[in-house]
Amino acid sequence: MKLTILGCYSATPRALTNTTSQVLEINNHMFLIDCGEGTQVQLRKHKIKFNRIKHIFISHLHGDHFFGLVGLISTFRLLTRETDLHIYGPKGIKEVITLQMKLSDSWTNYKLIFHELTSNNSELIFEDEVVEVYTIPLNHRVYTNGYLFKEKEGNRKLDINLVEEANIDMAYYRKLQQGFDVVNEDGVLIANEKVTKPGKKSKSYAFCSDTMYKEDIVPIIKDVDVLYHESTFLEKHAHLASPTKHSTAKEAATIAKKANAGVLLLGHYSTRYDSLKPFKEEAQEVFKNVRLSQDGKVFDFN
Amino acid sequence: MKLTILGCYSATPRALTNTTSQVLEINNHMFLIDCGEGTQVQLRKHKIKFNRIKHIFISHLHGDHFFGLVGLISTFRLLTRETDLHIYGPKGIKEVITLQMKLSDSWTNYKLIFHELTSNNSELIFEDEVVEVYTIPLNHRVYTNGYLFKEKEGNRKLDINLVEEANIDMAYYRKLQQGFDVVNEDGVLIANEKVTKPGKKSKSYAFCSDTMYKEDIVPIIKDVDVLYHESTFLEKHAHLASPTKHSTAKEAATIAKKANAGVLLLGHYSTRYDSLKPFKEEAQEVFKNVRLSQDGKVFDFN
Repeated sequence: MKLTILGCYSATPRALTNTTSQVLEINNHMFLIDCGEGTQVQLRKHKIKFNRIKHIFISHLHGDHFFGLVGLISTFRLLTRETDLHIYGPKGIKEVITLQMKLSDSWTNYKLIFHELTSNNSELIFEDEVVEVYTIPLNHRVYTNGYLFKEKEGNRKLDINLVEEANIDMAYYRKLQQGFDVVNEDGVLIANEKVTKPGKKSKSYAFCSDTMYKEDIVPIIKDVDVLYHESTFLEKHAHLASPTKHSTAKEAATIAKKANAGVLLLGHYSTRYDSLKPFKEEAQEVFKNVRLSQDGKVFDFN
Repeated sequence: MKLTILGCYSATPRALTNTTSQVLEINNHMFLIDCGEGTQVQLRKHKIKFNRIKHIFISHLHGDHFFGLVGLISTFRLLTRETDLHIYGPKGIKEVITLQMKLSDSWTNYKLIFHELTSNNSELIFEDEVVEVYTIPLNHRVYTNGYLFKEKEGNRKLDINLVEEANIDMAYYRKLQQGFDVVNEDGVLIANEKVTKPGKKSKSYAFCSDTMYKEDIVPIIKDVDVLYHESTFLEKHAHLASPTKHSTAKEAATIAKKANAGVLLLGHYSTRYDSLKPFKEEAQEVFKNVRLSQDGKVFDFN
């Protein structure tokens, strides 16, 4: 599981900082999460193959999370993309993208599939053999979802000595890998755990931006390996966090602690701060394992 | 008259090149012309004061001329702008900007005034004491206008010796500056040219992008001081220019020659070309005074 931060600042893109966008590589998927203005240039800078992006998840329709999407879609077209593109985001996203394509008379030659979200409950919105993606309903000024990406449990590993000792026919090995109990050559039922070990531990990543402190999300992200939680402000500016429905570093850490997260990744910093160090320090008073997002930073969580 | 090229490439923004946007400073006005994705970052890089921009002219609704507009409008809001902003562009521009503001529930606290264009004839769309702006109807895949910016003729200069010799009362000096003939103290009509000289020569700038070769624009831009004319392709790729409704460098030069322009400024280069030198060479076979736009280049035409 590898995460590339393309942009992690709030409000407006500037010469050296970008608004929110991330690429999550998980089990050979390459998911784009949010798409602030300039994301396509960031993707190029980081040499991410455009064609590997098949799913884009947009948290909400504020510009700093979304204004780069139409340009990216348009560039995909110019690059003669043929691969389907799935876009997940709040209701309205289809209308605004389609209107811009209509006005520029520039229709995609690939299939553009919108999955518009309206629910206020966590939903499974994507699933294949290896990964599941759930929404995390957040509390912001407009309808907003975070996203939880979960690797599926890998196959169990056979302990080949124990399997042979138990006199199990090879035809049942696949069933054993899938976690089933099987009947051996002597007609005896063999419990799966007796002859197999757990497979590779599956990883999970939760993206939570933008949101004010919302404890309701804790059960959804419980035990997540990596939690990205916005920390637009420090506690000394908590009076700004509340009316704008953002969080402080301390609040992000509190959620991480309650959710028993493995790592807390901070981001979506207000551009008022010159240094990010105080964000880490403030969060670490509540939760130890804190990392700071920075534009261009790549986190390898394997 | 000063022109800053923020971006002059076609199609898509890349790490080192930007799509179309320019700032024209003329008689204390600061006009923004087109607004590709990333324009706000380019404005910051070139230290252009956001608040001085009061009029934005959009040629057409293709992304490389327009996708940066909503972000800029949004950033103006975050910077608590109060100054009115006038936007000139094709019909539809109001709907798409308004929809994006509605979806993000982010209304501007300044007045946003749209001037939607639909005519296929050249129109005067802006005028004050010092400048006039006309549309230049172009021929592209979607409805497109270039823009002609003209300084108004400056006041005529009094030759104070001749004025006094002609026995003209001071009360008439303003009339003389404005070019009128006046009656002197002896009741004799004095021809303006006898006692005044022409004022500062007024400058003009024509922006023509995107368009295929269109001779109809020649009378509109006749004798223009500086003509920016797109040259997406070289002649060797003329077979690409025609179906995409773009021009070659040679065609741009032909328009410059027929219009008797002072300077031809090329731009909107296809990103397929590694060097811009051949554009200049090709154009100079037809028209001598050719300059190449380049991102970040500032042209002082005084």
